[in-house]
Amino acid sequence: MDISGLRVMGIDPGLTRCGLSVVQAGRGRSILPVSVGVVRTPSGAELTDRLKRLNVAVREWMADYSPDVVAIERLFERGNVSTVMHTAHAVGVLVLAAADRDIPVHMYTPSEVKKAISGNGRADKKQMTAMITRILGLTEAPKPADAADALALAVCHCWRAPAIMRQEAVAQASRERAAQRGRGSTQLKGI
Amino acid sequence: MDISGLRVMGIDPGLTRCGLSVVQAGRGRSILPVSVGVVRTPSGAELTDRLKRLNVAVREWMADYSPDVVAIERLFERGNVSTVMHTAHAVGVLVLAAADRDIPVHMYTPSEVKKAISGNGRADKKQMTAMITRILGLTEAPKPADAADALALAVCHCWRAPAIMRQEAVAQASRERAAQRGRGSTQLKGI
Repeated sequence: MDISGLRVMGIDPGLTRCGLSVVQAGRGRSILPVSVGVVRTPSGAELTDRLKRLNVAVREWMADYSPDVVAIERLFERGNVSTVMHTAHAVGVLVLAAADRDIPVHMYTPSEVKKAISGNGRADKKQMTAMITRILGLTEAPKPADAADALALAVCHCWRAPAIMRQEAVAQASRERAAQRGRGSTQLKGI
Repeated sequence: MDISGLRVMGIDPGLTRCGLSVVQAGRGRSILPVSVGVVRTPSGAELTDRLKRLNVAVREWMADYSPDVVAIERLFERGNVSTVMHTAHAVGVLVLAAADRDIPVHMYTPSEVKKAISGNGRADKKQMTAMITRILGLTEAPKPADAADALALAVCHCWRAPAIMRQEAVAQASRERAAQRGRGSTQLKGI
């Protein structure tokens, strides 16, 4: 299934630092970088203010780059409870921004991203950054880590998208056949 | 500090069921119920769709009842990881709705709410529901549990608000004195 031209926004969610990227699928497995950056919100500010700033920033990115789909990291409980909760609140407003523009969202765990990019679900940061730099033909490694992670999420989705789209097409065809059968039996009853 | 007339929205956050309430502070410790309800989103729907529905619903409540402040449950890691994450995403969009209307948000842990309402941080659901029914002069106990919890959060904030406002007034006065001193020394330098 050809996905060339598909624009993917990758999001490494966070409240203090949120990595954002946009890439565009080319022919075959080639991918072109479009933009990458990090949105920061002041850790001393109120949660209300921080979520609002993050939401405004991601909405601006979506308006500027019109992504077709968003790939965002799936969270697990790990590390500091308060940080995980803040990140999960951030995911809420990031996903909402996509929902408000009817952009589908796919979630990937860090190990799924690592596996897709490097073939190894336990690849370290250095290996991942080197792979991303090479895949996107960048002249230097993306910094900071959140930016590189956002690019990795977007690339991961590009490479998974054909399989996801095939699955969705099969599911859709199956639903349509079921609906056809449903209509058929209703007509029989009516005879 | 008199808070009579203060309108508080209480939110028991959740994606499958989100309890919402509005109460209004009267004279002394009296509190009038204004509204209570539960917003549900279908568990089979996409996360994007669920967060959007929840956000739309809470925005409608805020537009209808114009609360001065929101009291929402502070989350901890507990129970099913996926449920906690979903609830934390929900908190993100609920807090964002308040932020977009410049409504301040206060968070309370379940034990803070229980302590404020019943004097016992470990009160059970039955005791809490009985207390809320009595405090608000309701003819019958609020149902379901999420609705009762949303009312308890709002009542908790009403009773904590005078102390919070006193603390904020002291902090504000302190900032103003500091600013005065700052201006004073700048003028001296200018002489």
